[in-house]
Amino acid sequence: MVSELTVIGIDLGGTKISTALVDGSGRIIAHDYRETYATEGLEAVIERMLDGARCVMAQVGVEPSQVAAVGVGAPGPLDIEAGVVVAPPNLPGWDHVPLKQRIEDELGITTFLENDANAAALGEHCFGAGRGTEHMIYVTVSTGIGGGLVLDGKLYHGIGGMAGEVGHMMIMPYGPRCGCGNRGCLEALASGTAIARQARERVARGVPTMMADLAGGDSEHITAKLVAEAAGQGDVEARDILAEAMNYLGIGMANLVNLFNPQLIVIGGGLTNIGAALFEPVRRAIDRHAFHAQAQAVRVVRAELGDNVGVLGAAAVALARREPILSACAGPRLRDR
Amino acid sequence: MVSELTVIGIDLGGTKISTALVDGSGRIIAHDYRETYATEGLEAVIERMLDGARCVMAQVGVEPSQVAAVGVGAPGPLDIEAGVVVAPPNLPGWDHVPLKQRIEDELGITTFLENDANAAALGEHCFGAGRGTEHMIYVTVSTGIGGGLVLDGKLYHGIGGMAGEVGHMMIMPYGPRCGCGNRGCLEALASGTAIARQARERVARGVPTMMADLAGGDSEHITAKLVAEAAGQGDVEARDILAEAMNYLGIGMANLVNLFNPQLIVIGGGLTNIGAALFEPVRRAIDRHAFHAQAQAVRVVRAELGDNVGVLGAAAVALARREPILSACAGPRLRDR
Repeated sequence: MVSELTVIGIDLGGTKISTALVDGSGRIIAHDYRETYATEGLEAVIERMLDGARCVMAQVGVEPSQVAAVGVGAPGPLDIEAGVVVAPPNLPGWDHVPLKQRIEDELGITTFLENDANAAALGEHCFGAGRGTEHMIYVTVSTGIGGGLVLDGKLYHGIGGMAGEVGHMMIMPYGPRCGCGNRGCLEALASGTAIARQARERVARGVPTMMADLAGGDSEHITAKLVAEAAGQGDVEARDILAEAMNYLGIGMANLVNLFNPQLIVIGGGLTNIGAALFEPVRRAIDRHAFHAQAQAVRVVRAELGDNVGVLGAAAVALARREPILSACAGPRLRDR
Repeated sequence: MVSELTVIGIDLGGTKISTALVDGSGRIIAHDYRETYATEGLEAVIERMLDGARCVMAQVGVEPSQVAAVGVGAPGPLDIEAGVVVAPPNLPGWDHVPLKQRIEDELGITTFLENDANAAALGEHCFGAGRGTEHMIYVTVSTGIGGGLVLDGKLYHGIGGMAGEVGHMMIMPYGPRCGCGNRGCLEALASGTAIARQARERVARGVPTMMADLAGGDSEHITAKLVAEAAGQGDVEARDILAEAMNYLGIGMANLVNLFNPQLIVIGGGLTNIGAALFEPVRRAIDRHAFHAQAQAVRVVRAELGDNVGVLGAAAVALARREPILSACAGPRLRDR
């Protein structure tokens, strides 16, 4: 049986499109997964998104009229209100695409657009580690560092929908160059990319470390995963690099704790696979650098939705905006869990 | 004639108590101003607060029944919901004082408590430079750096009422020691205290500067005001110190712009008296370090309420919490002014 709160979530990425039919409690009823092939151009990608949506409905015999809404998580920048994808770097040829309108016209289902980091934050808030919280910050740490803010129980957008750029908080003036062009951003100090860069620099300098061997002698093959592997095998240099990066991540989180006084920070992304090597230094830095009361008030936990965070986040957007009263996302809130 | 929206604002500081009868548009109808004499103890201070409130009513012949609410801005930490002053460093002997209850019992008027920085933020939002904005950050730069956040048109508190500690964002790991015990906080780099410390260090090192003369040869007499004076007279060292400090202030503001995507940053506090020497480098740093779209979306302006920010902020707290629908603070919002 399909409840009124069944929605479709579409996670549009630069390399893949993940689509799911999801119920009001975040259960995935049907799932479709295909390549984006972004180079084939706009129309081909939109067609694949529509096919994915039709496919999940067909899998369980659901009609569009039975779907309450479609939520799309897409790379920014976006015009969320208008439902327009402005010009994402990883979707070449997309220039002010009225994606909401296109999907509504084709599927006949109300559609809402949200940037991917915000959607992921809402996904964890509705269905994952942040359930029941009022003030939650979601941070994703992988090649980059992104984030989304759930404040007073709602996604916080700011005036242009671009709030939550956690990774581009400057915490070291004149620090290493960031991909954004700035210097000393959190992302330039604590992301997977930053960790790999540090390791490559040490290997290039001839510092003795098993990372050189693991990379087959080519420092360009060094990734954050390889650094974590070397650290796990006791390599001192690798451990040092990770410890320093995670201390910076903790400083960034301490800043968020002082600014937002959140009850929960949810950390997701590939780097969380290192587990305690991430969470312990982050916790330590918060306890050391944030005010005592704010530090005491916040828990730092790992994201729960894993690879489904994008598609469940997109579904959460659909639920939160279509049925703000009824949806799980707007359910009773606990001040403490 | 007294409208239904007449409120009393009380700004309780460590050295003075400012009390005003204020109408719904932020007009001060009557004002009382007296010393705190905090060392005389809790009961004496509360009695002076009550006297101040009775005094402003008597000045214009208003009865307590004609006053919609009392708002109190007090130094934190506070329990805002319970209306309890926990243990502010500058009010010795105050330990979990149920100030809301005490004032309600004595005056018979509903009373609301808020921390002073939040109250000031709300004051600027309701009656000052932030009128009509949805997303506004208030920052006060004087001996310390504090702040308050108005997000989605409302004061943002976080889970324990302690959000908005703008001054204790770390922007330089291993930077100078801050009054809070941490290192490299914005306050340790850009407050009046930080500026004076920098100047004293240079004078003590024997760097040639007119700041030494202005201080009568005693580097302990150097204040931020003196540094600004020397800078105004063309002293290179003083200008250098101010420029560096204001660049750090700008980096802090750029971080807020990336995190909150606000439409307005309102800067108040004594240091704003240096005018363009503050606002120009701050603007430059935002344009340089924040994302283009967020930087474009934000205006940075000087606070408008001056010395009355505390008492008008306290009045704004009373209005916003007593009459959330009717008050100026909840009036129609403009996305752009």
